[in-house]
Amino acid sequence: MAIEMKLLDNPEAFPVSGRIACQGIKGAYSYFAAQKMFPQGKEIFFKTFDAVFEAVKSGMCDYGVVPIENNSYGSVKAVYGLLEREHVYIIRSERLLICHQLMARPGTEMKDLTAVYSHEQALGQCSGYIKGLSDNVRVIPSLNTAVAARYVAESKEAGEAAIASPECAALYGLVPLNKHVQDSDNNYTRFVCLSREPLIYPGANRISLILSIAHKPGSLYGILGKFADLGINMLKLESSPIVGRDFEFNFYIDIEAQAANEKVRKMLEEIQVSCPEFIFLGNYTET
Amino acid sequence: MAIEMKLLDNPEAFPVSGRIACQGIKGAYSYFAAQKMFPQGKEIFFKTFDAVFEAVKSGMCDYGVVPIENNSYGSVKAVYGLLEREHVYIIRSERLLICHQLMARPGTEMKDLTAVYSHEQALGQCSGYIKGLSDNVRVIPSLNTAVAARYVAESKEAGEAAIASPECAALYGLVPLNKHVQDSDNNYTRFVCLSREPLIYPGANRISLILSIAHKPGSLYGILGKFADLGINMLKLESSPIVGRDFEFNFYIDIEAQAANEKVRKMLEEIQVSCPEFIFLGNYTET
Repeated sequence: MAIEMKLLDNPEAFPVSGRIACQGIKGAYSYFAAQKMFPQGKEIFFKTFDAVFEAVKSGMCDYGVVPIENNSYGSVKAVYGLLEREHVYIIRSERLLICHQLMARPGTEMKDLTAVYSHEQALGQCSGYIKGLSDNVRVIPSLNTAVAARYVAESKEAGEAAIASPECAALYGLVPLNKHVQDSDNNYTRFVCLSREPLIYPGANRISLILSIAHKPGSLYGILGKFADLGINMLKLESSPIVGRDFEFNFYIDIEAQAANEKVRKMLEEIQVSCPEFIFLGNYTET
Repeated sequence: MAIEMKLLDNPEAFPVSGRIACQGIKGAYSYFAAQKMFPQGKEIFFKTFDAVFEAVKSGMCDYGVVPIENNSYGSVKAVYGLLEREHVYIIRSERLLICHQLMARPGTEMKDLTAVYSHEQALGQCSGYIKGLSDNVRVIPSLNTAVAARYVAESKEAGEAAIASPECAALYGLVPLNKHVQDSDNNYTRFVCLSREPLIYPGANRISLILSIAHKPGSLYGILGKFADLGINMLKLESSPIVGRDFEFNFYIDIEAQAANEKVRKMLEEIQVSCPEFIFLGNYTET
């Protein structure tokens, strides 16, 4: 069975505009990822990832932008779950370096600090800095960093601050109290662009797959052997338990390969035949 | 180089008591996992996972109990990071079925509901139910489910509820408003017991490893070949980017095997020699 894909011609360039579905609010990291991919795009915001996928499937939006993995927190399982069920494709990927700052309304000083708001993951990524704050400072989790920044901007309470991106400070009129609050400077999130169609732009060199593999010794070994035969590097490999079935897994696999290459397409078809479930998520460029 | 491990004799049974380091507060899921493993143990609570590991390493506590993976949210990366750095061992594992209920102070009725508190992951796991609530009900993330339950128990505000475990309701004097609020009934978290010593109890059949593998085609393939040769099943396989180095990975690998078997020990030593980094996390029983 041929794998559905649409190889685009050589001069075809990635679009710069369109209606882009994002989860969250203006100033969330998804928003900045969408802006980088589509400099002239129009972002449309949805509360949940489900709604973003639905907007792409229904055609309400041209594309969707969602986070797929973070180097500290791993894969975004909810997004993988939707990729498995919803038959949309990845057509591009963008790594965003995450940079957190402590910010407050103009006039607030460090000595006035009473509370810090941020997303729980951001609080975790700044835990070393937060430990050094006075015991009187309350630490309060928010739904995301942009919500935290907006809340602090609109609040009337004195001494409140948010941990969010520098772009968020600008967006909500906050000023940085401290620009270096995260424990590691190597903190990035990879975002993917979703499309209804399995478009493959010239130069695409990352292929993403979801496979379920028989639970017996050597099943995965046989598949990795096919990659090794063609000298293909793996970029990601992750087992994920299948809900409701004990000790059965899906594998999330990314490889460095081009579907434009006939040998690669043939290999993918062989894997498709050998696996109970095979989902081709796309072949795309990572920037 | 021999791998450090301490195979215990046949009649040796897993202990039932000791000082057990847990993250969180009484009523957190870690607490119930610790109680299941050590029915006569004394739990000692710490704010962070770091502090739990430190308590085990220093001897302040005999054992530690921490979550290592959830079937919806994946591996707990912070715990894997500590396992990689802190030289403690896994000596047992316990799967806990996670069951969420909506609970409030006695006398509160559904029609009075104004706010729901819970840990963000729990809110995510109940998102279908929460969507069905009135738009007037505020949804507020807490640090964990037990903190949410305790907050609601101590609050003076009318109409507040928490999403937490049934055991938490009993612990904090709350009553269930709704017992079926989570989207999937197959929601479990695996907890591991940490020890300073690499103790291997009789019957242990799960081996956990952290490996770093050269980033070239076929590296992982060679290792999986060794498992296949001995007919060993894999229980987990996950690539995790190494912070600060692009496109280099650690692999978290669990296999179904017994270190008491000499062939298995020999195979582990071969893998140790072939990998830039090799960490034997333990050989233990999963219940």
